[in-house]
Formats: sequence, structure tokens, C-alpha cells
Amino acid sequence: MTRGMRRVCRIVIAAAAVLTAGFGELRGTGDLGVVVERASGRLQVVDSTARISLGVVEGLGDLSHASVVYSRDARFAYVFGRDGGLTKVDILTGTVVARVVQAGNSIGGAISGDGTLVAVSNYDPGGVKVFDARTLELVKEIPATFGAEGARSKVVGLTDAPGRRFVFSLYDAGEIWIADFSHGDEAAVTRIRDVGRQPYDALITADGRHYVAGLFGEDGLALVDLWHPELGARRILAGYGRGEQPLPVYKMPHLEGWAMTENHAFLPAVGRHEVLVVDRRTWREIGRVPVHGQPVFVMARPDGREVWVNFAHPRNDTIQIIDVESLTIRHTIEPGPAVLHMEFTPRGDEVWVSVRDADRVDVYDTATYRRLATVAVEKPSGIFLTARAHRIGL
Amino acid sequence: MTRGMRRVCRIVIAAAAVLTAGFGELRGTGDLGVVVERASGRLQVVDSTARISLGVVEGLGDLSHASVVYSRDARFAYVFGRDGGLTKVDILTGTVVARVVQAGNSIGGAISGDGTLVAVSNYDPGGVKVFDARTLELVKEIPATFGAEGARSKVVGLTDAPGRRFVFSLYDAGEIWIADFSHGDEAAVTRIRDVGRQPYDALITADGRHYVAGLFGEDGLALVDLWHPELGARRILAGYGRGEQPLPVYKMPHLEGWAMTENHAFLPAVGRHEVLVVDRRTWREIGRVPVHGQPVFVMARPDGREVWVNFAHPRNDTIQIIDVESLTIRHTIEPGPAVLHMEFTPRGDEVWVSVRDADRVDVYDTATYRRLATVAVEKPSGIFLTARAHRIGL
Repeated sequence: MTRGMRRVCRIVIAAAAVLTAGFGELRGTGDLGVVVERASGRLQVVDSTARISLGVVEGLGDLSHASVVYSRDARFAYVFGRDGGLTKVDILTGTVVARVVQAGNSIGGAISGDGTLVAVSNYDPGGVKVFDARTLELVKEIPATFGAEGARSKVVGLTDAPGRRFVFSLYDAGEIWIADFSHGDEAAVTRIRDVGRQPYDALITADGRHYVAGLFGEDGLALVDLWHPELGARRILAGYGRGEQPLPVYKMPHLEGWAMTENHAFLPAVGRHEVLVVDRRTWREIGRVPVHGQPVFVMARPDGREVWVNFAHPRNDTIQIIDVESLTIRHTIEPGPAVLHMEFTPRGDEVWVSVRDADRVDVYDTATYRRLATVAVEKPSGIFLTARAHRIGL
Repeated sequence: MTRGMRRVCRIVIAAAAVLTAGFGELRGTGDLGVVVERASGRLQVVDSTARISLGVVEGLGDLSHASVVYSRDARFAYVFGRDGGLTKVDILTGTVVARVVQAGNSIGGAISGDGTLVAVSNYDPGGVKVFDARTLELVKEIPATFGAEGARSKVVGLTDAPGRRFVFSLYDAGEIWIADFSHGDEAAVTRIRDVGRQPYDALITADGRHYVAGLFGEDGLALVDLWHPELGARRILAGYGRGEQPLPVYKMPHLEGWAMTENHAFLPAVGRHEVLVVDRRTWREIGRVPVHGQPVFVMARPDGREVWVNFAHPRNDTIQIIDVESLTIRHTIEPGPAVLHMEFTPRGDEVWVSVRDADRVDVYDTATYRRLATVAVEKPSGIFLTARAHRIGL
């Protein structure tokens, strides 16, 4: 065979691979995922075993800050857009099966533990809307009203909690609300007041017990034990937040970018080149790890032995890997310009990395730190694998 | 419409539901699972959202003590039979895609973190065989030889560990071995000697760090920190095991039937009507909960707020639910004769229960303890939902 013929053969084989890798096939969905193409309002559906893209889904509106949750069968992705759009995408066929523009301006959403309700948190008008996960019909609106005049607050930090509940924070009201749908589609709402000024984001622990909200308006964080909401919110980590800022803060770090290991929580210091290490039982700081830049996502590898960190502009071409035992940097990699997000495969053998300004998603082996594959994606941001369907608070 | 017509309509609708619910459809696999029909050597494939059976897969040999792991796409179930049979089942089409009878007598298996290797632990001839997960071709045999004469030990307690490793115990040799496939298909084997007499079963913690083997030949358990195998095995929980037996022991409890919550491990007392409560950091007993019978499986609801317990013959018609905060019985249910196994849906909203002698699998709401549905299954034993694909050590 001539060199030219060999080249043609390679192209034919590659084209055939693309054809068989597309949408509409009978296949398992446990190893699928989506990558958000932020600028073009599209998703790429990816196969994390073959490390390839299956294709593109278009028409999803403004996807800056978009996030995604999954149906319990891991077939449907619910995409929360910045423009209030909520879209249900069939990742097996690559089609939009339902879409509503349900508010003017919204941020994030969640799916109930039983998979029947999808909730969206809205800035404007401030509140939470809850939809039927099957049809996207409105089930319930919860306006985030507060004060004597009935003003409405922006809602942030929305998450699911065990028992068909949603938990969220009211930025303008300084409150945390628990909406309980366990007795049907009429929510019983528990209001926790005076949690602190301007909660701006939140996380829930993997068991769904502890809800932690970051405070923009003052130091520290608000912690609610969802086993005991009657105790209200407790202030933890005094000094965390706006209190100490030797450097300009490029971005308040997401709280979902906290890493929880067996004994510790690792969190991004605000405005500093440090990762804070906190005892999970006492919520007291026990150490700091100096790092390359201002940390954005601080994520535990699923086995809890390493914590991977990416950074804010202008030092965002790098990932550092912290060894959890020694609390030192074990390794540094430079994937390329604008590393926006990382997503581990569920058992932690590989990690997917968005390199926005190189229009690439890279897949790394987490044992050797070698790059295994690259997928071409236009301005990638968030990566969401379907194993999230089976986790509380994701 | 007359009453008779209504009845006909209901039957037609029910029949249509059965027809559309079968194999071969394009669908997500995140909410599927299998139930082992022990006596007839069959699996039923179930849909945990619709709470129905999709159909039966036959020809799997002797399925007493059978266990199942899943491919990373959650499409293929690997079934480990008692007779040495290893069968790969496509749960989307309900067909056997590969089957080998790889030993005379075997117990359990595991799949590597990257999904490429399936390992089986064998009694006879004693050792571990490792297969290509795609084809079931033999990749590597690891004979469990020990002593001057090169005798072979029964192998038990096989589990996957992060980094393409398998860990297992040698019953006759009193050793724990770690087989590391991270550099290819030639395993590097680390032998930990003198772990204690007759390890009979084992578990690994959810992060894959701690491997705990029960000892049949003496008191206590052997603990290996897989971050530090060079430290060998440490003896924990002196007195646990054969040491104290006021009642005849009907069955040595499985170690995979231990519940791990945030701070505690809950484990079945051997030969006593008690669940032991142990501090996870020190591995010291801190309390006991009196229960209905000799516990078999002691399982944490995924949110860690409750621990569900079933019991050995002759008190095996009951499940008790322990409240993790107060360490008291919160509720007791009586599903029926011979409750063999329980499997929670991954976010813990429901639990599937095998009631062997009633030929039923029941689905309960874990918040209300109400029975939601029943699936007819012939002599059901183990229940395995596909979300296991994404967990370390399951």
C-alpha cells in the first residue's frame, strides 16, 4: 500500500468512527456527559470512555454561568441558562425535548432526590420556580419576599436536599429557606432569618446534611444543620470572605468549588494565593497551602488523596495538585490558556479540563498526570458527567 | 362506561405498559438494575423509576451467593456465580454477550476503576483471575500460592481500589495482597503477611483507602491503610468475631454489610442481637444498639441519617431502622418471610427489598416507610442498581 493510500484509509476509518459515534444509538448513558460551549449557546455531548464528542446540541440561549443536572435515568440533561432559560436535552438523541424561559435572569438549579421536580433560582423576579421534571410544566412558584413592603430578593445557592427538599439563600434578605415537597406539590417553607449579610453562594455536603452559605457583606460563613433547622444558622470561619484582601479579588470563588476529604475541607482563600485547610468537625482553620494564584475550584479527587486547584485570571493557565497527607504541592500542570473547569470521572481515574482560550477539553490520567486525549470544543466552560445524577447536591 | 368496560380498559392499559417496557429500547441506563433469582439461575432486569421488571435473562448457572458489578457506561452487568461462571449481560437488550466458566468454585469479583479489567476470586483453584472487561479474555492469573510447598489458598474479600488495583485476602495463608495493574496487564503484587488467621471476608471504605478483613480464626479484624501498605496490617476491634458468642452463629455476617456514616461505622455483632457502633477515626467501639435478631446487613441510607438492618434466620422477616443521632430504633417493618437483601436508590429516596420466600421484591419510600410497589421475582436474593458503576469498592 502506498503512503497516499494509507492516508486515505486512515481518513475513511476516522470518518466511520465519527459516523458510528453519533446520536440515536442504543447505548448505556453512565459514561456520557456534556460540555457547555459558552459563547455559542451550545452543548457538546461527550463519551468519557471513548474520550470523544458525540455531537452538538444547539438553541439553548445564553449559557454564560450555565449549569446542568441530570434525570435519574441519566438520559436527560436540564440546562440552566443565565437568561432564565431552562432546557431539557435528550443526550441520547441530541435533541431539545422541552424548553421554557421562566424568568429574566437566573442562576443555577437543582433536581429533587426522587427526580420528579426541577427547581430554578431567579434573580429577577427574585424567587424559585419548581417544574415537573417530565414536562417542564410549572408546579410551584416560591417568591422570595421579605420585609414589610414585600420586596423580592435575588435567590442564590439553590441545592437539593434529601427528602424532596430544596434549600436556597436570599441575597437581599440575609435568609436561608428550606422548601419541603415531601407531602406533594405544595411546599412547606421553613425560613431561617438573620443568617448574615448578602449570602452570595452556597454548598451542601455530600450527605446532604450541612448547608454552608458564603457571605458577601461580612466575614465568615453561615452553616445550617439540616437535621436541625430549628437551631438556625451558625457562623463559622470568622475572617473568611471579605475580611482580608491583600490582593484585588478577581472573582468571589464558588462554594461548590470546595473539596471535602475524610477529615478536612479545602477551600479557596478570597483574594490570596492560598488554599485554606479546615477541620470538618470543628470548622476551624488548621493550615494554609501556598499556591500559584487565586484559587477558583478546589476539588478533591474522588479517592480523597489529592486536591486539584485551578486559578483566577491572569494566572489561569495552570492546575496545581495538593497532596492531602503532606499538604504540599505534589505536581503542577499547564493545560493552556483559561482553565475554567475540571470534572473527575466518578471513580477518579481521569479528569476532564476545560481550556477555554485554546478551544479544547483535555482528558488527563490522574495517576500519571499525562494527557490522554483532547476534544475540540468552542470556548468550553462547565463539564458535567452523568454520574452526577446519583449524587446529593450536584 | 360500565364497570366491566372500565376493567377491560385497565387490563389493556396494563398490557400496553408491559409491552412498551421491554428490552431493546433507546433509554437511559442510570435507573436500571438487576435482581438475582437464586434458585433458577436467572436475573430480572428492573427499572427503578417505573418500579417494574423489564424482563428476564437466563442461563447464568449457579447463582447462590452471586454478586454483580457494572461497566462504566452502566449497560453491562458482570455476574459472578458460585460455580466459577462469569457472565457479561447486556441489560438494554436482555442478552448474554459473553460467558466463561473460569474456575470450579468462586466467590465474588470486582471491576477496575477505569472499567477495563474484571477480576474474580476463586476458592478452587485458589487465586484471582483477571479478564478483559470487553471480551472476557483472560488477561492475567494470580495463583494464591503460599508456604514452602506452594499450596494455594482460597481467596476472599476481593475489591477494586483506586489506581487500577485489586485487593484480596488469602483465607488459608492469612495474607492480604494488592495487585497493581497501573503499568499494564502485568500485575505488581504486594504481599502483606501475618494479618491474622483465616480472613473470611473484607470491605473497603468508600474512598478506597481502608481495607478491613474479618478473621474467622481469631478475634478482631485486620486493617490495611492502602495509602501506606508498607505499614502492614493493624489489628482493630479486639473481641470482634469469634470471641464472644452467647448464641449459635447462623451465618458470619458479610463485611460489605457495614454502614459507614460521617463519624461512625455500624457493624453486625457476631452471634448477638446487637449492632455495634464504632468511631471511624479510632476504630474503637462506642456503643451498642439492641436489635430484633442477629444482624446480617447493616446499611446506611445514603444521607447517613438512618441505618437499616436485616436479620439472620429464624428472625428474618423484619427490618429495623436505627436513628443515627439517638442510636435507637426509629421504626420496624415486616416485609415478609426471608428478607435477604436491601438496595437503596443512589440518593436514598427509596429502598428495594428482597423477600425471598414470598417471591417478591418490595420498594419502600424511605421517608414514610410506606411500601410503594411490589415486583414479582422468583426467590430473589441480591439487588444491584447501576449507580454502583460509579462507586469505588462496589
